[in-house]
Amino acid sequence: MNKFTSENIETLEQIILARRDVRGNRFINKSISKADLDKILFAGVNAPSVGFSQPWEFVIIKDLEIRNKVKDSFFEENEKAKTFFEGNRIDVYTQLKLEGIVESALNIAVFYKPSEHPVLGQTAMKETGVYSVVCAIQNMWLMARALNIGLGWVSILNPDTIKTILKVPKDRQLIGYLCLGHVDEFYENPELERLQWEKRKNITDVVIKETY
Amino acid sequence: MNKFTSENIETLEQIILARRDVRGNRFINKSISKADLDKILFAGVNAPSVGFSQPWEFVIIKDLEIRNKVKDSFFEENEKAKTFFEGNRIDVYTQLKLEGIVESALNIAVFYKPSEHPVLGQTAMKETGVYSVVCAIQNMWLMARALNIGLGWVSILNPDTIKTILKVPKDRQLIGYLCLGHVDEFYENPELERLQWEKRKNITDVVIKETY
Repeated sequence: MNKFTSENIETLEQIILARRDVRGNRFINKSISKADLDKILFAGVNAPSVGFSQPWEFVIIKDLEIRNKVKDSFFEENEKAKTFFEGNRIDVYTQLKLEGIVESALNIAVFYKPSEHPVLGQTAMKETGVYSVVCAIQNMWLMARALNIGLGWVSILNPDTIKTILKVPKDRQLIGYLCLGHVDEFYENPELERLQWEKRKNITDVVIKETY
Repeated sequence: MNKFTSENIETLEQIILARRDVRGNRFINKSISKADLDKILFAGVNAPSVGFSQPWEFVIIKDLEIRNKVKDSFFEENEKAKTFFEGNRIDVYTQLKLEGIVESALNIAVFYKPSEHPVLGQTAMKETGVYSVVCAIQNMWLMARALNIGLGWVSILNPDTIKTILKVPKDRQLIGYLCLGHVDEFYENPELERLQWEKRKNITDVVIKETY
């Protein structure tokens, strides 16, 4: 049984704090080695999963024709997205680079595959199956950062369109669409914090004692 | 900008591999220090969140009266859960210890608080708000493990009942109910793997190249 040290704790904290959402303006033209990709996927499949159901599937996409189709879905959804914002936020939004689908070395589309039989722990809260897949993505994100590889999660997409492009069986659910690649720089702070799009919350505002 | 080393990568991998879902049979009677709890919460609020929305709230519960009410919800939902399984699985299920609500040092109920204004990145896939909260939980889980503290995620609960017990505002959504405490032992392998409830999947069965 591993007993971790204060140095290990410090390492984990540094990785957590240094992790960024990386977009196309930071990716450089360098491929990801098989060893690094394997480490990232290994981190994913060792995430917790409800009832040890491991309900994840990872589609590794390098083909540029496929990625350009995905990018078309981004363009379409991003046009709709702009209509949600008002005033000078529209200008700021329009100038933001929000994805790195073709600039990255590869994409990973992560799907939830529902189990065919009842899953222990999923009977009262069905959504925990999907949550397991999100845990896998967060493990992958941290491992990518430890490997000094950037990862960006693109959510301005139409899941049905992505499923059609990737010929995904009907029962699967798109959870995350990830762009991975080496970078020229990891920002010190989240981009949306730097641009004052959103403020960082105080921890005291999100921690509640005993009851609301 | 942090550049991580192969030793750092190894540390993260060890923490990921050593993380377990811990139940009441492994918790010992020892409180969690404020410094450790702060580190766990700090890991949570430094998770990625869609549009930097940080849509999480953490209710720290030590009060045993409250915890016993939560445990009543577990009992109720667990009775229903048993009806999902068949044959000798019912016996195995019944013998499993599936929560550590009162045996742990404290509980953390984690909620999603929807934003009042449109969130960047959440316009096409609304569910990414909830996913941000799951990323926070996974960060907390890894940090707890690095601190040699066990964490168990209890999902056999009725979210509405928990909201009533904790006097939670209507718009919040229960994402995870966590039990944390020091342990006598972390198992080498997931409990459901040890008990042959589920088999570990081969990575080749969950990785797909380009398209299905």
